[in-house]
Amino acid sequence: MRWSGDEILEFLRADFPQAFRDGWDYEITDLAADRVTVRLSSHESQLRPGGTISGPTMMHLADFAVYVLLLALHGQSASLSVTTNLTISFLRKPEAGDLIAEVELLKHGRTLSVAAVHLRDERGRVVAHAEATYHMAGAD
Amino acid sequence: MRWSGDEILEFLRADFPQAFRDGWDYEITDLAADRVTVRLSSHESQLRPGGTISGPTMMHLADFAVYVLLLALHGQSASLSVTTNLTISFLRKPEAGDLIAEVELLKHGRTLSVAAVHLRDERGRVVAHAEATYHMAGAD
Amino acid sequence: MRWSGDEILEFLRADFPQAFRDGWDYEITDLAADRVTVRLSSHESQLRPGGTISGPTMMHLADFAVYVLLLALHGQSASLSVTTNLTISFLRKPEAGDLIAEVELLKHGRTLSVAAVHLRDERGRVVAHAEATYHMAGAD
Amino acid sequence: MRWSGDEILEFLRADFPQAFRDGWDYEITDLAADRVTVRLSSHESQLRPGGTISGPTMMHLADFAVYVLLLALHGQSASLSVTTNLTISFLRKPEAGDLIAEVELLKHGRTLSVAAVHLRDERGRVVAHAEATYHMAGAD
Repeated sequence: MRWSGDEILEFLRADFPQAFRDGWDYEITDLAADRVTVRLSSHESQLRPGGTISGPTMMHLADFAVYVLLLALHGQSASLSVTTNLTISFLRKPEAGDLIAEVELLKHGRTLSVAAVHLRDERGRVVAHAEATYHMAGAD
Repeated sequence: MRWSGDEILEFLRADFPQAFRDGWDYEITDLAADRVTVRLSSHESQLRPGGTISGPTMMHLADFAVYVLLLALHGQSASLSVTTNLTISFLRKPEAGDLIAEVELLKHGRTLSVAAVHLRDERGRVVAHAEATYHMAGAD
Repeated sequence: MRWSGDEILEFLRADFPQAFRDGWDYEITDLAADRVTVRLSSHESQLRPGGTISGPTMMHLADFAVYVLLLALHGQSASLSVTTNLTISFLRKPEAGDLIAEVELLKHGRTLSVAAVHLRDERGRVVAHAEATYHMAGAD
Repeated sequence: MRWSGDEILEFLRADFPQAFRDGWDYEITDLAADRVTVRLSSHESQLRPGGTISGPTMMHLADFAVYVLLLALHGQSASLSVTTNLTISFLRKPEAGDLIAEVELLKHGRTLSVAAVHLRDERGRVVAHAEATYHMAGAD
């Protein structure tokens, strides 16, 4: 791994401040060459009426968590990567609370990387499942 | 059509205030039984460094624009619908400015509706393409 | 489980003969309430020039393996289900040989079921990853 | 355009004989820089019980029709392209008969091309909608 979880968060706080807007925060655990877990702390701005976590919050975390793994593997040069495709299935309404993304890296090529993501709520239920493709920018 | 563009926006401002946070605003045009165009006014909070529109902003507008069409067709009862799947391909970096979603309703079933969405930037270039599936909640 | 692997294959041979055309055959293992493994025996008609397994063969097996799990859970009434969405990412060229689908059922609702599928070649490498949504027909 | 419809079909008959197995045949019309229509002649081997066209037939035609457009644009070098992602939504049961794919090229980059496909049955109804991403092989 090029970067640790702390190094990744330090880089992201400076380079990608929107992901931390309103005081949003993240915890990175279980970091390995082909997987990572990213936990988004609950925040009122993530909620829809009825107390469920919004779809855009889930899409953001799925995409963000894959980016975290690419930063771990490549360091700063991963910031040239862009998402080319994101597919997400919303499975059940998450309860208000932290949202946890478990990333499995399926392919790690020179120009394309593909990952599957299970999103869980605090109770541990899978609330959404996503697949993201990243492309190393500059190659196209 | 059950509701006009003005009726839809009036309902959404009350029922879905998060979509209007920070002063975000929308214009609904070309509303018909199987299509609608929704324009999101540009706002600083939509931008990434470098002046491009963020991925979550594009995902939100694609999803939101399909919901607008379901509200036009069904009125308030469409608010029981939930997105079950969203697939988006990011094609090129949009320039800062308004973002336009052109929705084509492909299927309008009793429990499932499917739509394709072309997202364009102000220059008219297709910057992303999405497909969304909505499910009438309560049926599952 | 309503049906065992043998019962499922017996039903499919009679009801879905196209899946067994040219002598194609399947092995069902690790059957549980939320997962199953389905192995497709290699056959010359599955190959592309160069000896790699064709895309349609992979798409077929991903879809078929999810259907196998729904048959296990519901018996014959699962035959009213239809695939409404299939997303597949092709990750690397599979080597000629058996193709193995590992299904994880993510949601099992009254009208919608969603599953993720890892497709592996005989060497155990993940060669494709799919997500399928089934809808209980008659509900729409 | 590098190749005409006739040149494409001549190339495919020699290079991709599986697509013509059992006597399957295709007609290419409306070929332009960003679109093409490909018509698959009906054949008994495409049908499911009940007389509807099978899912694998629809997935094959969607993928094949995009490949046709890349061959028109690039000639033989397009044969180095591989599908990296295919997403398809099945909207309604097609009636037995010819199946028509209308391809819209959304992005045509150096390494990645993305296209949307409307699949229609002979009655002109949209029976499925697909999105395919092709990657120029050798780049990864």
